[in-house]
Amino acid sequence: MYLAVRNCALVGRFSDPRIAESVGALLPHLTQRGVGVLASEGAPLGAAGTRVTRIPEREIGARADLVIAIGGDGTLLYAARLVAGHKVPLLGVNRGRLGFLTDVMPQDMLAAVDAALAGALTADERPLLRAELRAAAGPVVDAFALNDVVMQKHDTGRTLEFETRVNGTYVNTHDGDGIIVASATGSTAYALSCGGPILEPHLDALVIAPICAHTLSDRPIVVSARSMVEVMLLERPDTHAHVTCDGMLLGALAPGDRLQIRTAAERVTLLHPPGQDYYKLLRSKLHWGRGSFER
Amino acid sequence: MYLAVRNCALVGRFSDPRIAESVGALLPHLTQRGVGVLASEGAPLGAAGTRVTRIPEREIGARADLVIAIGGDGTLLYAARLVAGHKVPLLGVNRGRLGFLTDVMPQDMLAAVDAALAGALTADERPLLRAELRAAAGPVVDAFALNDVVMQKHDTGRTLEFETRVNGTYVNTHDGDGIIVASATGSTAYALSCGGPILEPHLDALVIAPICAHTLSDRPIVVSARSMVEVMLLERPDTHAHVTCDGMLLGALAPGDRLQIRTAAERVTLLHPPGQDYYKLLRSKLHWGRGSFER
Amino acid sequence: MYLAVRNCALVGRFSDPRIAESVGALLPHLTQRGVGVLASEGAPLGAAGTRVTRIPEREIGARADLVIAIGGDGTLLYAARLVAGHKVPLLGVNRGRLGFLTDVMPQDMLAAVDAALAGALTADERPLLRAELRAAAGPVVDAFALNDVVMQKHDTGRTLEFETRVNGTYVNTHDGDGIIVASATGSTAYALSCGGPILEPHLDALVIAPICAHTLSDRPIVVSARSMVEVMLLERPDTHAHVTCDGMLLGALAPGDRLQIRTAAERVTLLHPPGQDYYKLLRSKLHWGRGSFER
Amino acid sequence: MYLAVRNCALVGRFSDPRIAESVGALLPHLTQRGVGVLASEGAPLGAAGTRVTRIPEREIGARADLVIAIGGDGTLLYAARLVAGHKVPLLGVNRGRLGFLTDVMPQDMLAAVDAALAGALTADERPLLRAELRAAAGPVVDAFALNDVVMQKHDTGRTLEFETRVNGTYVNTHDGDGIIVASATGSTAYALSCGGPILEPHLDALVIAPICAHTLSDRPIVVSARSMVEVMLLERPDTHAHVTCDGMLLGALAPGDRLQIRTAAERVTLLHPPGQDYYKLLRSKLHWGRGSFER
Repeated sequence: MYLAVRNCALVGRFSDPRIAESVGALLPHLTQRGVGVLASEGAPLGAAGTRVTRIPEREIGARADLVIAIGGDGTLLYAARLVAGHKVPLLGVNRGRLGFLTDVMPQDMLAAVDAALAGALTADERPLLRAELRAAAGPVVDAFALNDVVMQKHDTGRTLEFETRVNGTYVNTHDGDGIIVASATGSTAYALSCGGPILEPHLDALVIAPICAHTLSDRPIVVSARSMVEVMLLERPDTHAHVTCDGMLLGALAPGDRLQIRTAAERVTLLHPPGQDYYKLLRSKLHWGRGSFER
Repeated sequence: MYLAVRNCALVGRFSDPRIAESVGALLPHLTQRGVGVLASEGAPLGAAGTRVTRIPEREIGARADLVIAIGGDGTLLYAARLVAGHKVPLLGVNRGRLGFLTDVMPQDMLAAVDAALAGALTADERPLLRAELRAAAGPVVDAFALNDVVMQKHDTGRTLEFETRVNGTYVNTHDGDGIIVASATGSTAYALSCGGPILEPHLDALVIAPICAHTLSDRPIVVSARSMVEVMLLERPDTHAHVTCDGMLLGALAPGDRLQIRTAAERVTLLHPPGQDYYKLLRSKLHWGRGSFER
Repeated sequence: MYLAVRNCALVGRFSDPRIAESVGALLPHLTQRGVGVLASEGAPLGAAGTRVTRIPEREIGARADLVIAIGGDGTLLYAARLVAGHKVPLLGVNRGRLGFLTDVMPQDMLAAVDAALAGALTADERPLLRAELRAAAGPVVDAFALNDVVMQKHDTGRTLEFETRVNGTYVNTHDGDGIIVASATGSTAYALSCGGPILEPHLDALVIAPICAHTLSDRPIVVSARSMVEVMLLERPDTHAHVTCDGMLLGALAPGDRLQIRTAAERVTLLHPPGQDYYKLLRSKLHWGRGSFER
Repeated sequence: MYLAVRNCALVGRFSDPRIAESVGALLPHLTQRGVGVLASEGAPLGAAGTRVTRIPEREIGARADLVIAIGGDGTLLYAARLVAGHKVPLLGVNRGRLGFLTDVMPQDMLAAVDAALAGALTADERPLLRAELRAAAGPVVDAFALNDVVMQKHDTGRTLEFETRVNGTYVNTHDGDGIIVASATGSTAYALSCGGPILEPHLDALVIAPICAHTLSDRPIVVSARSMVEVMLLERPDTHAHVTCDGMLLGALAPGDRLQIRTAAERVTLLHPPGQDYYKLLRSKLHWGRGSFER
């Protein structure tokens, strides 16, 4: 499926010794196979880095034919932003335990990379969210998110009061710590810890999940992935809110500003070993089937 | 939209005085407009019943051009079964307070009926679920459900242990009181009280929600409406389970039996006053926007 | 602490081969130490039973100096009823995995029994609940419960509407599948699967937890263990409710009847290996500390 | 009960017009009754302020015989800190809707004040929590809280990993947004929106409720009010946590620091109109009894 991989970019927290170890094994392996290795300019690759072509991080999407994210799901989320809008597939290698997105274990890394080079992995296209923060005054800022867009109180102070709309229709006025708009992919991340449901990864839907809502009936809503979700803060003293995309700061939201979230035209392609079983992953991650508490 | 309504069937608990009152007003209104009125043979319509043509209940779907369900959502669920597989639209009149499905209030009933006869109501097609209970020995029994199919312990005794599959793929082994498979329409019914999310009514999805699961991470899953969900009991002493469709008994489930739930080819058409706003209904039903508990 | 144990009663599902195996090891061990073994008349002890004195089950509390419950927590709950009101301590041996109440593993059974005979185990007094079902007509029936008293819909049909009172003060009118009144001991049983909190086992409190409440703000309440909790059904068609104590049927509850639950004067003494750590047990039973789902 | 009230202090956000209106009515009323009025030096009392003795805020507890908090529950929490350790009772007047703590409505204010002066209100003693933040280096800082002590991530970034201990016994290692230790009084505040139970206001217990825990079985625990609860952060990149007492910042918590929470020796006395009914307040605040969503 993926023919010529001439350049492969590595993304990760290379200062972590476990990740450095994986990189140490991966570099000669790729070189041996005639694949050039790219990394961002500042990446602390140590001695290993001598065999690596350094490029500005924002060029990774355009210049790599394959991106390998080594670390946890957070690292893969970071890499997903770099490849959004490019057709570069992403392979996630976990540093020790299975992630929802990084489902190759360290001991299987080299075999999985060979399979990726041979086009023998399964391509799994995931939609991205696009968040636009339209300040009452000032420019529009935007970003992609694979998991979720979160609007949340910034300081540990008062709760936020805010309105939500779906496709322009007023939904509710919420009082709480914030709100999550998650893709199906992101339904098992932050939204799950806020009482949201699990969505099959390819379900064409979004979850809107309030964070610590102060109205007990303010429950998660699942809407079509073709929806446009808007969030607007109400005026209230000491209102400080931030918007993050996959945990990375997009900007501050103030009363009068408008946060708009929709499914992006761009997608991300994850590579998985063949035969990946989503429910098996869920059972492993959620400790299902290890017996209930009552027996 | 709906041309000639020649026969209109009434469905409801006519022994309830509030419903009898509505029927008392509705009968002359329909007669005046030249519409014949049908009711099932046993319906206790009292004196009013003299103007009514009695037919076997199972013929209502084939012989009526419009069905009016008077009562709560439960009455409309009952009527939905009668019209499933026929093209007859359903109008739900509530007996006192707004329902999710019966959104015409008593005082608006006559105007809504006139609008229905004039084809001026909005048609809202809702998918039905179809449950098939395949006993290890014996015939297959099946039924439609507009809201949900529920497999639940029958007696107040031990919890059930059961397996779920989606499209043949093993999902989980559950320990608890049972499980709900709800349509988007039914997401605001029983599934909501079991921690399920709210699904937009036209979202092409099902909720699978465990009932009082004894594994705390056994959370609701949202899957495509094109899925086939299977439930099978495991052997355990004192296992007694029942399957209901919209609260009506389909049969007992025993270890070795197989319960299969999928979206039916048949649909139901609900009639609503124009301009119906789903989120307004949610706000009303869930007491949203009446202020949070903390201020 | 526990001086002369002359008679030890065994309680369990002896037809289970794993339990029969434990009994097979336990009988000669007790006989060797000069301890007489009691069992209820009908208990299927097989060949092993020849060395056992059979007595009516209801005499176990009065005639045994120690009761060993072999099985899961359910077996211990059953045994707790037999000893309520007597000063006989209870030792729970699990058949394979740790229980909240049966915290001696099979391989540690003989050592734990020796320790019990030597008075070297820790005595852990737990309060019992007492449920009284006062029918509008007919006698009062009552029972003890170590974990919980549950009032629940009997058939898989309509929800129940019922009122709760604490010490005579009206609390709420509930709509749902039922309600649980749990002791601190029982807070980790059924109540936990209905959204209830974990109570420290010696906290002087009860949990009142609604089952699948149809009002989303109808949340668990923790009240003093010195409270009297009352539950009364409202009239509604098709209302069928049962009351169980630790999962065993006490009787049916009808509109007009009154269910009263309070802490009993009687207590039960559990024996534990020294150094038992409740939070370690919780971590094991709830799979805490095995990593969260997001990394 | 409360004899001579010579000085009454007013606490509130006087810049809010509704509160200014209440103050405008209250001042001549108190003056007429020969009661001196105190307020903190900076309070924006406008023209009305000429009849008021200004004192440093920290002297309010020592110099007032009665404190009236006008506003929401947040204002009363603020006032509670000022009187902690003094024997001054607190009367909470709400600015428009019932609060859990401020249960006198504006229209009943003057009558309630007269009743307070006459000693005709009911005194309701509530325990306070005391939080001590013991930094690895640096001084110990501490504060009182009537509702809750909260340790929470400060920035909208990564979750926190932290350990909890009760009376020195290790409980769990949590991964999430933070943790709440709430008094019975505070159980209906932030802890309730994090899935905590409702505690009767005089129950001798604390709730420990994780905030958006990433382990789904990490549930609220209720412990004796005589417990000492400790929270310690684990080392993790980008860990930023704050500790607040009743929403007011106590300080930052870093790995190596220790947060200790226990019930204080000091208490606060709230004044209520006679016949206050806690469950009636709950029903009002939580919209109980307004019907469930399903009918």
